Amino acid sequence: MDISPLAPARFPDLPEITGVTFATAAAGIKYKDRTDVLLALLAPGTSVAGVFTRSATRSAPVLDCQAKLGSDPGGAAAILVNSGNSNAFTGGRGVTSVAAICQAVCDETGVAVDRVFTASTGVIGEPLPHDRIVAKIAELHANQAADAIEKAARAIMTTDTFAKGAAATVDVAGKPVKIAGIAKGSGMIAPDMATMLVYIFTDAKIGQSDLQKIVSALNAKTFNCITVDSDTSTSDSLLMAATGASGVDVTGHDGFVEALHGVMQDLAHQVVRDGEGATKFVTVKVEGARSDDDAHKVALSIANSPLVKTAIAGEDANWGRVVMAVGKSGAAADRDRLSIRFGDITVAENGWRAPNYSEEATSAYMKNAELEIGVDLGIGDGTSTVWTCDLTHGYISINADYRS
Amino acid sequence: MDISPLAPARFPDLPEITGVTFATAAAGIKYKDRTDVLLALLAPGTSVAGVFTRSATRSAPVLDCQAKLGSDPGGAAAILVNSGNSNAFTGGRGVTSVAAICQAVCDETGVAVDRVFTASTGVIGEPLPHDRIVAKIAELHANQAADAIEKAARAIMTTDTFAKGAAATVDVAGKPVKIAGIAKGSGMIAPDMATMLVYIFTDAKIGQSDLQKIVSALNAKTFNCITVDSDTSTSDSLLMAATGASGVDVTGHDGFVEALHGVMQDLAHQVVRDGEGATKFVTVKVEGARSDDDAHKVALSIANSPLVKTAIAGEDANWGRVVMAVGKSGAAADRDRLSIRFGDITVAENGWRAPNYSEEATSAYMKNAELEIGVDLGIGDGTSTVWTCDLTHGYISINADYRS
Repeated sequence: MDISPLAPARFPDLPEITGVTFATAAAGIKYKDRTDVLLALLAPGTSVAGVFTRSATRSAPVLDCQAKLGSDPGGAAAILVNSGNSNAFTGGRGVTSVAAICQAVCDETGVAVDRVFTASTGVIGEPLPHDRIVAKIAELHANQAADAIEKAARAIMTTDTFAKGAAATVDVAGKPVKIAGIAKGSGMIAPDMATMLVYIFTDAKIGQSDLQKIVSALNAKTFNCITVDSDTSTSDSLLMAATGASGVDVTGHDGFVEALHGVMQDLAHQVVRDGEGATKFVTVKVEGARSDDDAHKVALSIANSPLVKTAIAGEDANWGRVVMAVGKSGAAADRDRLSIRFGDITVAENGWRAPNYSEEATSAYMKNAELEIGVDLGIGDGTSTVWTCDLTHGYISINADYRS
Repeated sequence: MDISPLAPARFPDLPEITGVTFATAAAGIKYKDRTDVLLALLAPGTSVAGVFTRSATRSAPVLDCQAKLGSDPGGAAAILVNSGNSNAFTGGRGVTSVAAICQAVCDETGVAVDRVFTASTGVIGEPLPHDRIVAKIAELHANQAADAIEKAARAIMTTDTFAKGAAATVDVAGKPVKIAGIAKGSGMIAPDMATMLVYIFTDAKIGQSDLQKIVSALNAKTFNCITVDSDTSTSDSLLMAATGASGVDVTGHDGFVEALHGVMQDLAHQVVRDGEGATKFVTVKVEGARSDDDAHKVALSIANSPLVKTAIAGEDANWGRVVMAVGKSGAAADRDRLSIRFGDITVAENGWRAPNYSEEATSAYMKNAELEIGVDLGIGDGTSTVWTCDLTHGYISINADYRS
């Protein structure tokens, strides 16, 4: 498959995080001739936080991770991820697979079973051939390396057209703290959960519950604000591991939160940039809503509307469809106070077309690969920003023939 | 544009309804060389009921109709509809257009302004050139005919590929009562309102408030249970007119309700069959939910899911995406009690793939033009049925270049 036209030029240079090592292997779960399993090992004392899909049909690995997150930190930890099969809707067999993988990681590495976090991504409803993963665990243990994070990003890809990574270094009391993250995700991307697989590592020192609070709050502003196709996955998970190896305590440090926000937002945008069939990266900014919740409803209604998304694909400045999406959102709106802009061009205000509206100028703007749709509801202070992509023939082609 | 492959063989024979006449004209609002205005006249004493979009940005004609419906019946009534321009998000100018049209109909026909119901369908946000409509009203008045309902159905079409009509005759106490209806709609179709323009006529005798109750209840089971693309229009309206000309009082008559239900369901299905780009007609039946509301949430979540709809387009029995859609719906669900069938083929039960699942048999079933997806949540008595179509390259082609 061709690389998304919205992809970054190259995978970024990610710093090594002391206390974290990676290895990947080709277990042949579904794909041929590529890696499909990742094992990351985390040093003793690492705090692990996470957010997960809220789907009522979430996968066995998600349920297992959720049960383990609350457990007391302490010894070493491990993250094992496979691509090609999501181990979702696989009943008791799915639970057995997770248990077998966790036990095998424990037997090989000595990491306690309740500190082994797994994830699976790919087809739903097929039994996971976990023996193929178990057979690779010794190899994965033997090959651990601190500089293999790009390989890790590649092993967890499914319909992704590029590997996704982001990093930051933040100065805390004169000492550098490093953050490095990877993500996968391209379809079945919608908010109200951690819309994909995301793994972020830092050498910062911070307790589990403090880390969890920061991660949950930032997730609400980043991964929960992107949508490719309004479809919410059964599997998706974000894990953040803080090894503490820098010796720098970041508890209560705003600079750390800001840097982590940047990394999470960068990864979230990369998922949208790799949206199935995407040719446009679209920022939807809503302000003037009765509440932030209302603003978020309006932003998602616009970002998920097939008619808005196809108009963008066709480079058509069809702001009438934005009006429609505002109207159907369920949020309070007053038609006559609503204004809409495409980029800096006001297209509608005071309940109808802007007096100086220029079809020519707006059509020229729509040819950009990066677009901003702004909506001011004019009735309050609520704001929300959501990122999405267009809906193209490419999406249909990919998804009308993905499974087979 | 090619006629939908799911279209009925031909427009049905609709009975004339005593007390209702029609005329159409070509006012050149947007389209060339076709009719785009309909005037229907209703005899004095006709009860008029209606349901409308609940969009917060609904059009001027919708707001005007809603205000008038509550008014006392009495004299004659009129329905004037134009296609090509929706007069939505046109501010004060939109209100002026509605008033000018209603006044012109009143001046020409003598129907009181508060008994003139208008509707406009087409592009959002362009000022309606109402003078072109006003200029045709004398002609529309002169050409009234009882047998012109098919012409009426054609004049209100926009992206529709076929005209939509349905009828029934019901025996009430030995006397025939006739029902005839027309509809338009093909895109921007989603429930939580009367998803399109629908006009239904009967010679039954029934009071306005009784008629309104029946229409609202049946709307919830028919037009509010279809979705093409999850996008809710700003304009859509259903009006039902009972002339009473048969002299047969149908108040409290179950047979009349049943016959009307049939007509409304038929028209609703025709809208789905003309869904933009549709190649498959899909019935989604949900049972065993905690409540009917929950069942409806699950059914809509499946019917609106781009991933489910593209899988159907690709004739891929991808029931994992149905599991996903159940999970994201927000309704209570228990993964291990859920069962899913495609037609009569159980594909998943007891939390995973059905033991006797046959990929070959299921793939063969998916080649049908009419499909049924059944979901039993296994946790209650709630049920819901929703009708939808697939999501194809045709939808993208139509909507990436509709306005220009």
